[in-house]
Parts: sequence; structure tokens; C-alpha cells
Amino acid sequence: MTKLTRADCAAMDTESPFAAHRAQFELPQSCIYMNGNSLGPLIRACRERAAATVAEEWGVGLIRSWNTAGWYDLPVRLGDKIARLIGAQASEVVVADSTSANVFKVAAAAAALRPGRRKIISEKGNFPTDLYVLDGVCRFMGETRELKTFDRHEIIDAIDDDTAVVVLTHVHYVTSEMFDMVAVTRAAHDNGALMVWDLSHSTGAVSVDLNGAHADFAVGCGYKYLNGGPGAPAFAFVAKRHLPQVRQPLSGWFGHANPFAFVDDFTPADGIRRLLCGTPPIIGASVLEAAVDIFADVDMVTVRQTSISLSELFLRLIEERCDGFGLSLVSPADADARGSHISLAHEQGYAIMQALIARGVIGDFRAPHFIRFGFTPLYLRHVDVWDAVEALRDIMETRAYASPAFTHRQAVT
Amino acid sequence: MTKLTRADCAAMDTESPFAAHRAQFELPQSCIYMNGNSLGPLIRACRERAAATVAEEWGVGLIRSWNTAGWYDLPVRLGDKIARLIGAQASEVVVADSTSANVFKVAAAAAALRPGRRKIISEKGNFPTDLYVLDGVCRFMGETRELKTFDRHEIIDAIDDDTAVVVLTHVHYVTSEMFDMVAVTRAAHDNGALMVWDLSHSTGAVSVDLNGAHADFAVGCGYKYLNGGPGAPAFAFVAKRHLPQVRQPLSGWFGHANPFAFVDDFTPADGIRRLLCGTPPIIGASVLEAAVDIFADVDMVTVRQTSISLSELFLRLIEERCDGFGLSLVSPADADARGSHISLAHEQGYAIMQALIARGVIGDFRAPHFIRFGFTPLYLRHVDVWDAVEALRDIMETRAYASPAFTHRQAVT
Repeated sequence: MTKLTRADCAAMDTESPFAAHRAQFELPQSCIYMNGNSLGPLIRACRERAAATVAEEWGVGLIRSWNTAGWYDLPVRLGDKIARLIGAQASEVVVADSTSANVFKVAAAAAALRPGRRKIISEKGNFPTDLYVLDGVCRFMGETRELKTFDRHEIIDAIDDDTAVVVLTHVHYVTSEMFDMVAVTRAAHDNGALMVWDLSHSTGAVSVDLNGAHADFAVGCGYKYLNGGPGAPAFAFVAKRHLPQVRQPLSGWFGHANPFAFVDDFTPADGIRRLLCGTPPIIGASVLEAAVDIFADVDMVTVRQTSISLSELFLRLIEERCDGFGLSLVSPADADARGSHISLAHEQGYAIMQALIARGVIGDFRAPHFIRFGFTPLYLRHVDVWDAVEALRDIMETRAYASPAFTHRQAVT
Repeated sequence: MTKLTRADCAAMDTESPFAAHRAQFELPQSCIYMNGNSLGPLIRACRERAAATVAEEWGVGLIRSWNTAGWYDLPVRLGDKIARLIGAQASEVVVADSTSANVFKVAAAAAALRPGRRKIISEKGNFPTDLYVLDGVCRFMGETRELKTFDRHEIIDAIDDDTAVVVLTHVHYVTSEMFDMVAVTRAAHDNGALMVWDLSHSTGAVSVDLNGAHADFAVGCGYKYLNGGPGAPAFAFVAKRHLPQVRQPLSGWFGHANPFAFVDDFTPADGIRRLLCGTPPIIGASVLEAAVDIFADVDMVTVRQTSISLSELFLRLIEERCDGFGLSLVSPADADARGSHISLAHEQGYAIMQALIARGVIGDFRAPHFIRFGFTPLYLRHVDVWDAVEALRDIMETRAYASPAFTHRQAVT
């Protein structure tokens, strides 16, 4: 096979269905952004929406904006827009709180629907907040519950008739391994357990069909592939068949059937609003809505195909141009088995990523030695992948990463 | 006593210590804003900070801003700034989530410190979200707990040796009645119970001294008197003596001792960070920080004195100019016994407030028939109080409120 050239990669972008989307992102000059799996970049409409929400809705409309600017409906209206991206119906998704808080709500709600069953099952090495929150659920919730974690390949066999809930992250935050949502959900149901999917590394990047898989609950993140901004609110999904029975512990006033009646007794709202807790974060949710609106005319199948095209190109270029540098593939080689990012391992991973960032190629590092690269068709081109691999090749070949400027660890992230 | 004139009121503003603060608020033209107890108005610095956080920190800094723009430290840095306003020490306050979620965290954490005690005590007619969340705590938490509510004057007597936690709102959202924080906290402690204060209608408006009262836990709102914007994040306080033992159920990754170590087991952060749950809402928290910074050179005693001067003026003008219109005072006549808003009752309260709003006097309505007026020295003047009462007088005298335009109920709030 002839080695690819930069011109070959550029040619792959000529028919891009996402050129108009890319133009809406305000990426820094000379930046190749491959960290959309961690924090999506700024979209022009988000900047404009933040300004309008602050200056007009808050500044001029003031408290009236609960009605006139649609603040009250925002969590459900935005949930409906996200629903389309994850195979959910309207009124099954609501935007609220953080992913962590939503894991708490849906895991506790699911466990309450399976009284007498002891186990909550998850994956060893799952994204930590899921495990930490499940620990909190087990520690504080009424019945005796126990968090049991297993290696990925053991999970289906571990689900038994003492299992209340299975909580898994659809795409693994380091390895990018993707669970077979249909098969795992079926295994949970076959044992009478309920299934919670964390879609943080899926939503907006891979095709997700929650209702096709008969999923019970899900949560997901607003600031990764949905580009909703730092600390954007998250979302929660509850299958319509469960909604009438669902009670979640964070029963704040916005989850009440009639929050402005100001009565003492809690009656949950009829539908998905019962997943709400306190007053919604209006500025953050408004910015997220502007970001999600960019997906309105986007076909998620095309997004997925293009993501695979980008990541397959990356792997081929790594093979052709970075051989012998000690970089090993952590993610599945089979595109169908992975999400929309790829992790490589290298002993000097931290320093390598710092060196890449210094050259404008922004991926990220995850302890102890993984470097991650996100593939986001709405703003990343094939030629960007070439340029990123070329930067990596040069850094490895010249050992530029060995500079103390790159090996010195910073405080966080 | 001679009746006051508008000129008398204007004269009261000539020596205002807050003229420079008022100039920083971007109030709509011809608006007298008396709803700061519900949603504080926009400050110029908040508008600018929102723009900078979005365009520069997010847009340009991207993921690097966790370090370079201080995102990681924001919840504690901002908590320290709020601490000064409520009689707390640095590192006892953190900004996170909604008030409702924080009530859940601290009430559950407090209850866990008092195992074997059954009762959680609160006030009948407390702000509903507190009662709803405490219902959730009792419904879902491990031990058998029961929420018992009492009328305000019965509470101290109701606290007994089966009481785990007392949760009260310092200033009542309708009546503005203010609890004696020292006396009630002492009564809780005398019975071995812990005390949680909801400072939503206090912070930024009345003098609060949590440590002076030996309070155990507190929560408060970012979008009322702190002017942090719609749905601004809230805060939680834990007295330093409790921090080493405190465990709260929403144990997300930002409450971990080392969130970026990505280990499976949860170890709470050493200090107040353990009250954090998920990724902080950076845009909302940044806007709130800009709002709180306006208090940096403000003496809360002067704020309180001026608030009382404004509300006493309001009551005198209502007496002098609105007598015989059927408006009755719901709030305490004694300024020391009330917070920074005043509620009046009238059968046609809803329509009266709509008519006031139509004339640019923005207060709010609370079911079934209360109209509320907030007194916020940083941007409300004595002459504004005159103009507001004059508008009210005219509306009552002409029965302008009886128009169908005002009597027809809108959807929410």
C-alpha cells in the first residue's frame, strides 16, 4: 500500500458534509483541537447566546424572562433536542445539574424500583465519578446495597437475580471501548435488573439508540461532544414506561408537579420534569442549547461515518509515520468497537502531550500514561489529522518531549 | 408627624455610601427593581465576565483554562469571598450545584453524624424546596428518618433528644420573619441535634454570623441578593470542626481527594472541596464571582442599616399614603425581626403586582395573595421607594388593577 500524503488527506475533505458547521466554530488560530471528548470548543452561536441571555433576558427581562424568554421550559425543550441524538423520544430527556448528580438520581431511582436486590454492578476502571457516586448511593440509600465492579468482559456473566441495577459508561473514557448496548441491556433485563447508561463519551459522537436497546435510564454530559461550554449542565433520560413510577431522591422544587403553588407536600411532576431538582442553571443551559442547535440538521450516521474515517486515518498515519517510537494503541483497532477518540500509551505520555500542545495540537493526558485524541467531524478535518500526526512524528523523532518544559507536571487536569 | 414628601426621600439618598455601587448595575430604564430577593439584577462586571469567560477562557484557553484561568480553584475561591458575608471562615464555604442539591447534601451529611436519631425538624410553610428535599432525604436515606414540621413558634420546644437535624430558613421567603440564629442553634445543640441554616433570603442582605452562632451547616442562593444571575450556582457551608467527619451522599469526582488520579475508590477531599459533586458550572460560577466581588468593599452592617432605612420608609409611606386600600402587612413591623423584603397581603395581590410591573415597579407575587418588595441598598434608593409607593397608591385609588390585562394569570412564577 502506498503511503498517504498530506494532499491525499486534504482531498478527503473536499466533499465534507460539515464544512458549514466547521465555519461556526471559533477555534484559536493554528490550533488542531483533538480534545472535544473532554471539552468541546466554542461555537459562535454560543458566544452570542451567552451575551443575549445575560444582557437581554437577565438584564432587561429580569424575572419576567421565566415566562417571556422560555426559561421555565428550557430544561425540557433542550432535553427534547438532545433526545433526537440518542434514540430517545421527546419528553424522555431533561437537562439538569451535573452528570455526577444525574448518575446519583437515576441510579437511586432505578435501585428503588428493584427493592430487595442487593447489587449495583459497574465496571472496574469506569469513569471515576460514576463509581464514586454509586459508592455514595450504596452508603446512603435505604436498603443495603453493594457496589460490585468487574472487568469489562466479566460483566454480563456477573449480572444475576440479586442485581438491582447495572451502570455502565457506553464508551470508555480512556480506551474508547464501546459496549454493545443492546446485548448488555438485554442481559440486565434477562436477570430482572435495570440498565443505566452513561453516554458522556457517546452523545454527539457515535450513534446511540436508547429506545432501540430498551434502555431504562441514561445520563450524559453537555460539555464534551455537545460543545456546551465548561461545566455545562448535563442530561438525564428515563424511558417513558418507567416515568410514572420513578421517584428520585433529589426532589427539589423544580421537580414538583406545581412548583409555584408553594405547598408543603411534594408531589412529583407528571413527566420527565420530576428528574429536575433546583432552579435550573439558565445561563449554562442557554449556551448549551445554542450548541445543541448546531446538530439540528446533522445526521448522526454521517457523523459516525466521518468520525471513523478520521480515526482510521489517524491509526494508518501512526502506523506509517510513527513506527518504532514506542507508542502503543490502547483503543480497539476495530472501529466498530470503539467510540470517537483514540488513546495511545507511552511511558512519556504526559510530556509528549505537553509538547504537542505547545505546537497547537491539543489532545489530553490521562494518568498514568495515556494520551487521548478526539475525532470530531463537525470541526476536525482529515488534513488536521495529518498535521497532528506530523507534529507527533517530529516530537518523537527529535525527542522534543524530553525537555523539562514538558516533563514538569502541572497542578491539575 | 408631618407627612413625608418626595423631596424628603431624595434627601435621604444624598449621603448614600452605595452610589458607586448603584452605578455598576445595568437596570432597565424607568425600572424600580424591588425583586432582588428573587432575582438580583445585572451588574456590568457580570456581563463583561460572562463574555470573557466564554470568548477567552473557553474559546481561546480551552481545556488549559482549568489551570490557567483558575477554573479548578473557582468553587473554593468564590466560597471564600462569600464566607466574609456570612460570618464564616475561609475554607468553610464552597460554591456548587443548586441550593436544593446543597440542602440534600448537608441535611444528609448532618443526619449521618447523628445516627439513631429519627427526626429531621423544619418549619411548616418553609420555602418548599427545603421541605421537598428533606422529604427526599427521609425517603431515600439509610436509617429511618422522619420529617416533622412545626409552626415557627413551636420549633424550639419541638427539638428533643430524638432530633438529628433542624433545618430552617433564616429569613422566611414570604413573611420575611427572621429567626434568632443564636437561640435556635443553641436549642438544637442543647438537645444534641445539628443545625442547618438556609441563608437564601439572608446572604448579601442582612448581617449573618454563622460562626458567632456556632452553626453547623448552611446553604445559600447565588441569584437573589448576591446578584449572580438566573440559576446561578449556590453555596454550602460546613463548620471547620465538622469537616474531617463529614461525608455527603453526592460524592462525585470533584469532591475526591485527587480527582485527576482516576482511581476507582472514593476518598473525600480533605476540606470543604468534599462538598463538591460533579464538574463545576464554570460560566455560571464565573458570573457569580463577578457579582460577589462588588461586595468586596461593602460593610454588611451598613447594608443592613440602609435596608432597614428603606423598608421603614416603605412602611411609613404605605401608612401615610395607602391607608384604607385593604393592604395588610404580613411581615413583622419590628425591623429587627425581619429580613430585607416586605410582604403585603391583598385579595387582588396578583393583579396589583401586574399593574405595578406595567408601571415599571417590579416586585413579585407569591400565592395565594402576597405581594413582595425587596429592599436592596446597593441599587435601590429612598426616592425609588417613594416612587414605588406612589405608583401603588395610584393603582389602588383608581382601581387600575381591576383591568383584565392584570387579573389574567400567566403560566408561571
